[in-house]
Amino acid sequence: MLVCSKCGREYPERFRLRCDCGGTLLVRHELPPGFSDALTGHLDMRRYVGLLPVSEEHLPEPVPAITPLSKLDIGDVTTFFKLEYLQPTGSFKDRGTWVTVAKLREEGIPEVVLDSSGNAAISLAAFAGRAGITAHLFVPAHTNPGKLRLLRKLGAELHIVNGDRMTVHWDAVRFSEEKGLTYVSHWLNPYFIEGTKTVAFEAYEQLSVPDYVIAPAGSGTLFLGLWKGFSELKIMGEIDELPTFVAVQASGHESLCKRSSVKSRLAEGIAITEPPRLEEMKAVLDETGGICISVGDSEIEQALEWLWGRGFIVESTSATVLAALWKLQESGFIPSGSRVLLPLTGSGLKMVEGI
Amino acid sequence: MLVCSKCGREYPERFRLRCDCGGTLLVRHELPPGFSDALTGHLDMRRYVGLLPVSEEHLPEPVPAITPLSKLDIGDVTTFFKLEYLQPTGSFKDRGTWVTVAKLREEGIPEVVLDSSGNAAISLAAFAGRAGITAHLFVPAHTNPGKLRLLRKLGAELHIVNGDRMTVHWDAVRFSEEKGLTYVSHWLNPYFIEGTKTVAFEAYEQLSVPDYVIAPAGSGTLFLGLWKGFSELKIMGEIDELPTFVAVQASGHESLCKRSSVKSRLAEGIAITEPPRLEEMKAVLDETGGICISVGDSEIEQALEWLWGRGFIVESTSATVLAALWKLQESGFIPSGSRVLLPLTGSGLKMVEGI
Repeated sequence: MLVCSKCGREYPERFRLRCDCGGTLLVRHELPPGFSDALTGHLDMRRYVGLLPVSEEHLPEPVPAITPLSKLDIGDVTTFFKLEYLQPTGSFKDRGTWVTVAKLREEGIPEVVLDSSGNAAISLAAFAGRAGITAHLFVPAHTNPGKLRLLRKLGAELHIVNGDRMTVHWDAVRFSEEKGLTYVSHWLNPYFIEGTKTVAFEAYEQLSVPDYVIAPAGSGTLFLGLWKGFSELKIMGEIDELPTFVAVQASGHESLCKRSSVKSRLAEGIAITEPPRLEEMKAVLDETGGICISVGDSEIEQALEWLWGRGFIVESTSATVLAALWKLQESGFIPSGSRVLLPLTGSGLKMVEGI
Repeated sequence: MLVCSKCGREYPERFRLRCDCGGTLLVRHELPPGFSDALTGHLDMRRYVGLLPVSEEHLPEPVPAITPLSKLDIGDVTTFFKLEYLQPTGSFKDRGTWVTVAKLREEGIPEVVLDSSGNAAISLAAFAGRAGITAHLFVPAHTNPGKLRLLRKLGAELHIVNGDRMTVHWDAVRFSEEKGLTYVSHWLNPYFIEGTKTVAFEAYEQLSVPDYVIAPAGSGTLFLGLWKGFSELKIMGEIDELPTFVAVQASGHESLCKRSSVKSRLAEGIAITEPPRLEEMKAVLDETGGICISVGDSEIEQALEWLWGRGFIVESTSATVLAALWKLQESGFIPSGSRVLLPLTGSGLKMVEGI
């Protein structure tokens, strides 16, 4: 079923973005009695299909990968970088899109609408196109021309909007209402989080439970997915305690941390000042004793250089987690000897021709 | 041990590129009694470390991924696309580099030389840099500036050479001889093929034995790796017969097929007219009843469009295998009902800013 995070109202497990009260929804799917027994023999994301609210027959292609985890000592802590940028379209979004498209196929929905010009758009274009679902993508006019051509080649219907990010958003909403089409905002979509929660399952198999999870927290799709994955491991009796969650935000675009005056340009993937799942993110910090931390462009730039120098070809938003770790080591929040999980979210190969 | 493919002479299992007779070398490592028993529990390439000539303690980071396999019916055959472009640096080369760097570490070699401006260079720069090995990369002066910056950021020592590809090659060889440094040409290096052979192990676990393998065949590092992987499965008694191997080459750059007059510009990854492992590739075609097929730019372009439209964001060299499949279906070489493995070798995300 779907459960409202605000009023607790329950809905059947269909595609739906919000509760009637306006609250955001999460899936509460019946979990198997044990984690290990639920795993399949597949060497890709289908390994966790027994823990997802979709049936194997509707899973789209290509199937997202099980991504490598890379261990590194930084100062006196042990870090585990999860290479989420090694997914079919170059970001962790493929996990969420994959479960979403499976659900759309299950319900026979042939045409959907999304506003985004980033990794979520590329991901939806690729998976929807392959699954025979028409994806109307609303994108700002200033979007990089290379990206627009990529989206077209992947088969998306592009709607180019003059105006700021909110204008693009409202145009998409109006279009979906006028045409009676399904709006699939990943900021709201509960099935998206069902996909991202598998990052926690994999990380658990690869390193057991880390002491800290340091994750970007813009709209919260990955942050909440990680929390939900570890929470389900706890519900299944597989682990006793959740890791402490650190929410990383970008200077000038903070929603959980205090808003700074200087606006980051490098962390565009998390430049979201009013995320609809804000209260849920706050609850995760409360539950796990975590904190929010904000990073600025000079810190991000330094972290990006460091990551590329260690063979991690990521985009700048991905570097925020390392910048955050450095600050938290300095402040003493993360004690010596800790084991820390840091997802690296998006590929830097897109930047190669342009850098 | 290392065994010469030409005269059969044996050498100890150290880093070495050629036999004294000039012949190329392959590793003949003692195989475990059974394939399944040799697998480790790792969810990355370390799964196959029991079948590799390196010890676990020297394996570098990051560890290459187990890549997804994507199933698609094309006409009356079932294709399995292996997403080899989802590796840390965006190509299958990471598998070969990873085993190579493990071997270099085992032998305590601190500084190496390579000539390449493509995926092999990016891969070596990333893994060597991380492992504390200095990589001198000899690249042509006309290399894309974005790629040069990427190589520098990954920590490589760049040597920019005015002249054609052969001038670059001889400059690298001369430099390594003058300085007494190890030249690590992936065209010759037997440990590189030990890495690429794991593509066959994974594919076998994911789909069992295909009827056909259609692979790019420029220098032959992937083509021979696939053959070696399936051959070792046969030696271990895991499979009875090898798939039929199809070598795909690019118009104007053929070594196995008859040389065409029109030169392909899109398949730069396999534009190698005199591969040192030519005789070994011929032997694979003889052994498996396979053939060579050449494709041109208009066919590659059409195949690339098709792949992007199905969510496979690959570079143009990767599309050669699909162009080849289409031709072989038309000619009747690949019969109805066949199961065909097609590795997709390199990421197209590098093209996004530029396209």
